[in-house]
Amino acid sequence: MISFNQQLHNRINKIESWLCVGLDVAPERFLSSETSLDVLKVHTEKIVNATADLAVAFKPNFAFYERWGGAGFDWLKELVEMVPKGPLLIADAKRGDIGSTAEQYAKSIFDYFGFDAVTLSPYMGSDSINTFIQNPEKGAFILAKTSNPSAIDLQNLTIDSQPLFMKVSQWANMLNSNDNVGLVVGATAPDELKMIRDVTPNLPFLIPGIGAQGGDLETSMKVGNQKGIGLINVSRSINFAGDLSEKSIRVAAKSYVDKMRKIMES
Amino acid sequence: MISFNQQLHNRINKIESWLCVGLDVAPERFLSSETSLDVLKVHTEKIVNATADLAVAFKPNFAFYERWGGAGFDWLKELVEMVPKGPLLIADAKRGDIGSTAEQYAKSIFDYFGFDAVTLSPYMGSDSINTFIQNPEKGAFILAKTSNPSAIDLQNLTIDSQPLFMKVSQWANMLNSNDNVGLVVGATAPDELKMIRDVTPNLPFLIPGIGAQGGDLETSMKVGNQKGIGLINVSRSINFAGDLSEKSIRVAAKSYVDKMRKIMES
Repeated sequence: MISFNQQLHNRINKIESWLCVGLDVAPERFLSSETSLDVLKVHTEKIVNATADLAVAFKPNFAFYERWGGAGFDWLKELVEMVPKGPLLIADAKRGDIGSTAEQYAKSIFDYFGFDAVTLSPYMGSDSINTFIQNPEKGAFILAKTSNPSAIDLQNLTIDSQPLFMKVSQWANMLNSNDNVGLVVGATAPDELKMIRDVTPNLPFLIPGIGAQGGDLETSMKVGNQKGIGLINVSRSINFAGDLSEKSIRVAAKSYVDKMRKIMES
Repeated sequence: MISFNQQLHNRINKIESWLCVGLDVAPERFLSSETSLDVLKVHTEKIVNATADLAVAFKPNFAFYERWGGAGFDWLKELVEMVPKGPLLIADAKRGDIGSTAEQYAKSIFDYFGFDAVTLSPYMGSDSINTFIQNPEKGAFILAKTSNPSAIDLQNLTIDSQPLFMKVSQWANMLNSNDNVGLVVGATAPDELKMIRDVTPNLPFLIPGIGAQGGDLETSMKVGNQKGIGLINVSRSINFAGDLSEKSIRVAAKSYVDKMRKIMES
């Protein structure tokens, strides 16, 4: 039995990469003549084939599949099954519900789809998280400080002279008795990334916000990987690289991995 | 054009009911010999048929459908389509994601499935909410104080001498410029229900926690419906009433509506 956080660690060491590839293919990104579900399926498989050896993990965001209803969920299932052995699979679902309902979500994400980990919202507290972290082999990344502009609305409210995201981070740290809890921490707020790393030295960070959202790769890599793991998610800049060919997608992904290696060596 | 909150108001006035029927049918509630998806479909349609004239709204929780993958989402779509004209349809999805992703979730919930409203988590702030409330005819219930035991983990943290759920409630109130924002406020914390009602007199409350979770119906009805609307959700106690027959389900739902009417007259 290898805990989820250890699986992450092993994969990073094996391929010397910190790249998580988001699989978020919206039809609005294509010409209107090309937006059938089949076109999106072919394109997403292209991304997987182009980057599987460079990716620590793939992270499909459920919204991009759910918009197609049942057909979208069938697609997501096919997608999970076509990923070759190696990359871990993170369900970017941001679920959060009462215990008995969380059990149903866990059945969906871990048992039905077969993901290795899930992203979760912290707002409903520990009984909305516990079901997902009972099995050490399956992991959960809890939202701490997200990469979007309005993250400050709630996450930066002050409690006992600390922002809420610090309280959430420390609380998530306490839930990590099975070595399978991580945090979502956006690359768009590097100072806050440092603050969180100081109080949770060992939790893996899933760091979105690089690429289209303009986050800071160097700080994210250095702070993220001080002791724990800093896994850098890139979605749009890889999914829609250059002329959308497998070659362009691979070049974009390889370029990120090369930059990451340089930063880690410097 | 009638705003979502006005649609709720109209439906309540028309049928003199404050009942929202949760449609959350887990196979674990049946004998193991009866747990095929078809059995669950037939049972859920039975609940709809038995209660449609008593229900202000139906509220399927997505977890119970997602656990079946694509077939579950197909079922949810069929279910939405078989509900007769009258009851509103609330997607209990508790979504929350960055703006560009929220747009995809809105396409799923409003455009694909055709729901009238959705439940949302507040943790990522206003850009995770705005997409859902652009159209006044579609509504959003934002989680304020939930009904589960660990709701206190975060929701009761103190900010400027107020609990977080009060901050969230006041913030949701500010988002209500289209008369289509409401709050989720659990019946299991009646004092906190009163506190929230005092600062958001006009927002509709979606109140879970009655029935299996042991919440207080009388307080929920009286405080919830002081000025705004207090919509009482019941799931398990109606879904699995008596011998599971259409008659037992209707008797349970009617009994709740009768109690509500008595409370409102007293």
